[in-house]
Amino acid sequence: MDEARDKGLALNPKYDRDGLITAVVTDADSGELLMVAHMNAKALQLTRDTGLAHFWSRSRQSLWKKGETSGHMLKVRDLRIDCDQDAVWVKAVPAGPACHTGARSCFFRRIGPEGLTPVDAAG
Amino acid sequence: MDEARDKGLALNPKYDRDGLITAVVTDADSGELLMVAHMNAKALQLTRDTGLAHFWSRSRQSLWKKGETSGHMLKVRDLRIDCDQDAVWVKAVPAGPACHTGARSCFFRRIGPEGLTPVDAAG
Repeated sequence: MDEARDKGLALNPKYDRDGLITAVVTDADSGELLMVAHMNAKALQLTRDTGLAHFWSRSRQSLWKKGETSGHMLKVRDLRIDCDQDAVWVKAVPAGPACHTGARSCFFRRIGPEGLTPVDAAG
Repeated sequence: MDEARDKGLALNPKYDRDGLITAVVTDADSGELLMVAHMNAKALQLTRDTGLAHFWSRSRQSLWKKGETSGHMLKVRDLRIDCDQDAVWVKAVPAGPACHTGARSCFFRRIGPEGLTPVDAAG
């Protein structure tokens, strides 16, 4: 355990070899898990500065302000970091569906014994 | 978008170059985000087969049954996968603190303007 990083009060993100940390977004009101994405240092800084979630798109290899094109921004209500500082928890108020498929949450399918089953909107 | 993977009902995890997907664990009752870890195919299979969360430890490079030494197992109540199938959501009943620091959740610090601040247990 890295005592200072794991228990201290200095922000010192542990970026991976691609310069990224994991970002987990939940709905600030319902608590539902909305999406999992990644942030580089710039995305984290912009998220802190603007109060709107920014990520690094691995598929597009570019900075990504969530909702930039869809309008479905994520307004940050709380931002936390985990023990080893390689993941952040964004509690957000979503302006629309978080998922590119149009679903409210990206986690709209359950893993069952025989494969996946859709989860209804009430979850 | 990979239509079949993103919207279909076949389990087809998109493992990264290390053979891993991200695993997000929330408390099945409180909804609190407890931890973020990783699973390889074997860990996912064991999680499904046993109903107890298994991960791949990147630091130890070994399969890791959560609670194996601490006794703080995570009993899986629901298991979901996201749109592009590179992250799973484990809703679990924790047998004890999820964090190696002894905290209930790994996300016990808030990112504020000046650094980190501890979040009290009531969160």
